[in-house]
Amino acid sequence: MKKTTIFALSIFVISIISAFQLLPSKEPSKATPPNIILIFMDDLGYGDLSCYGALQYRTPNLDRLAGEGIRFTNFLAAQAVCSASRAALLTGCYPNRVGISGALFPNAKVGLNPEETTIAELLKDKGYATGMFGKWHLGDRPEFLPTRQGFDEYVGLPYSNDMWPVHYDGSPISTTSDNRKKNFPFLPLLHNSDTLQEIKTLDDQAKLTGIYTERAVNFINRHKKSPFFVYLPHSMPHVPIAASAKFKGKSKQGTYGDVLMEIDWSVGEIMKALKENGLDKNTVVIFTSDNGPWLNYGNHAGSSGGLREGKGNSFEGGQRVPCIVRWKGITPAGLVCNKLTSTIDLLPTIAHICGTKLPARPIDGVDILPLLKGDMEATPRRYFYYFYRRNNLEAVRRDDWKLVLPHEGRSYEGQAPGNDGFPGKAPENIPFPLALYDLRRDPAERYDVKETYPEILAELQKVAEEAREDLGDDITKRTGKNVRKSGMVQ
Amino acid sequence: MKKTTIFALSIFVISIISAFQLLPSKEPSKATPPNIILIFMDDLGYGDLSCYGALQYRTPNLDRLAGEGIRFTNFLAAQAVCSASRAALLTGCYPNRVGISGALFPNAKVGLNPEETTIAELLKDKGYATGMFGKWHLGDRPEFLPTRQGFDEYVGLPYSNDMWPVHYDGSPISTTSDNRKKNFPFLPLLHNSDTLQEIKTLDDQAKLTGIYTERAVNFINRHKKSPFFVYLPHSMPHVPIAASAKFKGKSKQGTYGDVLMEIDWSVGEIMKALKENGLDKNTVVIFTSDNGPWLNYGNHAGSSGGLREGKGNSFEGGQRVPCIVRWKGITPAGLVCNKLTSTIDLLPTIAHICGTKLPARPIDGVDILPLLKGDMEATPRRYFYYFYRRNNLEAVRRDDWKLVLPHEGRSYEGQAPGNDGFPGKAPENIPFPLALYDLRRDPAERYDVKETYPEILAELQKVAEEAREDLGDDITKRTGKNVRKSGMVQ
Repeated sequence: MKKTTIFALSIFVISIISAFQLLPSKEPSKATPPNIILIFMDDLGYGDLSCYGALQYRTPNLDRLAGEGIRFTNFLAAQAVCSASRAALLTGCYPNRVGISGALFPNAKVGLNPEETTIAELLKDKGYATGMFGKWHLGDRPEFLPTRQGFDEYVGLPYSNDMWPVHYDGSPISTTSDNRKKNFPFLPLLHNSDTLQEIKTLDDQAKLTGIYTERAVNFINRHKKSPFFVYLPHSMPHVPIAASAKFKGKSKQGTYGDVLMEIDWSVGEIMKALKENGLDKNTVVIFTSDNGPWLNYGNHAGSSGGLREGKGNSFEGGQRVPCIVRWKGITPAGLVCNKLTSTIDLLPTIAHICGTKLPARPIDGVDILPLLKGDMEATPRRYFYYFYRRNNLEAVRRDDWKLVLPHEGRSYEGQAPGNDGFPGKAPENIPFPLALYDLRRDPAERYDVKETYPEILAELQKVAEEAREDLGDDITKRTGKNVRKSGMVQ
Repeated sequence: MKKTTIFALSIFVISIISAFQLLPSKEPSKATPPNIILIFMDDLGYGDLSCYGALQYRTPNLDRLAGEGIRFTNFLAAQAVCSASRAALLTGCYPNRVGISGALFPNAKVGLNPEETTIAELLKDKGYATGMFGKWHLGDRPEFLPTRQGFDEYVGLPYSNDMWPVHYDGSPISTTSDNRKKNFPFLPLLHNSDTLQEIKTLDDQAKLTGIYTERAVNFINRHKKSPFFVYLPHSMPHVPIAASAKFKGKSKQGTYGDVLMEIDWSVGEIMKALKENGLDKNTVVIFTSDNGPWLNYGNHAGSSGGLREGKGNSFEGGQRVPCIVRWKGITPAGLVCNKLTSTIDLLPTIAHICGTKLPARPIDGVDILPLLKGDMEATPRRYFYYFYRRNNLEAVRRDDWKLVLPHEGRSYEGQAPGNDGFPGKAPENIPFPLALYDLRRDPAERYDVKETYPEILAELQKVAEEAREDLGDDITKRTGKNVRKSGMVQ
């Protein structure tokens, strides 16, 4: 070949390569939609991972994930309690919009309304294989279980791992006790709607992380040729915490440290499975948590990393959670993003990434794909409503401004936490007054600046009114226009 | 050669290699003592580095340093104010033991007593070349300057960069103003005891990080053949903050972000100089800060990462600071250490590493070399005294237990911080009552547990009595037995 031909050919080849490289950052390829792995923790604290400044734990696999991906520092669970948070994650809606609040108990008559559209349903319609391995907590009656909500297969607990007739030290609760848990059945480890095994002891609990992980890896291996969605909501580190024999005593940081070490191992196993199957690049891995740490469990709880309060509370310690997203070739390695984001944004973002349509019913989430691509000028979300209980509007956000509305709430402050699995005294209800916080300068919500910024105060009061009009507010006794009903057993 | 000979030889070679590999982890080699680089920040917050969970900043060079070394999460500046903290760092003593408190003003009659032994003097006696590039703040009279305290050469400011006759916006303070700074001279950038240049404007301030860095790199290049000690105490991010043209506006996180970006660049330049000179391995690099963030400067201050309070306060936000130590081949890569440690421990540790004797006068620091080697069973420090003002004993520590003693102190809580260089209202003095905190579970010091743990309370009350006997206490009007005098102009 002539030199000019070679030159022209080189330019051509380079252009082709460049075009391919550019492609995913313009628009996800329609030919091979990426796999989605969504790892969801239970009661993990904002300060529990070393990449989030953990005070005592090492989480090398999660740190690597963050180093290869994007780490969000202003990512909110939609509500600081289990079932509500999970309803929001899977539907992209505030939980009160879809009628789910609090934490559902065994045999509850309520569940996620099958008419709502979950991430699993969106992806299943698009031809994804959908597997779920872990805690459900959106209704344990047959009509509400995961296989009725878009998952091809399911192995896991239908609700929280402390909803069993067992004391904190592993001894059975006597039938004459006044503990309401005495009537709960042993925890059913479900396979679709059948019970695989009953979880009766702390030793059984210790195997859950391993079981979920092994099932998830097996699913990945089986579906490497089709696009897949794996939802891996661990039962840990929700109390009662327990680590398997391989990790027990290994962290030198107590049981909570051992459990975190096993979770970190689990993340490593998932990443290994992706690499071994050649899926490392075309898979979006998302890691986050349902709410902040359950602080009155002391050394069996995580750390909010200094954020105020914890689980069950609308201060940041209750709702701000770690969130790491790694999508090789798309997410800039090691980026830190402090833009306001939430679990409800995952559904529309995944829909965009995978090229599915959005649910027919209106949702609250916004597409944060520009942030995942490293566009730090993008601000897909400016507002957020902090609801708690059935429908109490406790705070609203605009960017880094947070207005805490007058409300009664539980506070862990000034209360001695428990020890070794036993809880401290339940947090007391105290009144929280109106307060304006600039979270950028004051992430711990300690410096009320409402008198310095009256115009921001007024603006956020209007945002609160909009929230009330839309979703209602039990505190000011407003009824929302746009709330929908949960599923209910007929 | 016969096979057996080759085999024997191989074993011999492997043994030799193994012996060499083991050597440094047993005892630092006496033949080639390592170089020491001590980078000291001014008012950097606990939550300002991404490896400490920063909410908005990216610090890739510091993250790499932490990833290759050890990251301390319970490391305390000896006192939450500038001169006191620096006296402690350089002498290995509580600052009140050596008679230094607060922040010295220009032309102060007081300075670090030349009879105290600094890290620089210990190392100079051992044949080290000793260079200091940055802020001194231990007396600006000639007899107290760095070149009289063990440093062969010095370039830097003799005190804080806000001690000049200039307003926060860069305009001059009128001579008729009641601002006490009106009589301060422009900041002298000293070379040994001569003024190289006067720092008169914010643009001059913006060059300081670059000047210190360039001087430090030049010193490393000149002394690559002899062991050296470089002390690099930056003036930034103490107000007035400013970044050079190369970094201005680059962080997209405001001036504080730009300044942090430049500091991170500076760390990268130092590491590059070490590598280029083949000194990467035999150099211990230490990075830490003099105290927590000056919170009433709002967006011109760092973040305590949720720890309580900030600079000028004995709660953790005032004294707990980032500390990273990297010593290639010795510090286990990426280790997180939550053992109680302090700036006063650096002198005896450096003395051990470099094979020097300890100062003749008693010191307070302990040797933390076992922790640097990754021995997490070691607990070299169990107790710590939190003094503030001249001699107020405000708190004591045993491991993760902290007893806050009744005292009056400044609080930033509930106060609106300032903006763009202007401070908020000065923090008000409020009474803090007796409180016991379990920092392991409650790093933010929110849950007083003295009623739950009366035996720990009693134990720590005894520790406080020991502190008072040793060093005195202005609150309970006790005189300490073992305090020494600062240097004083005759």
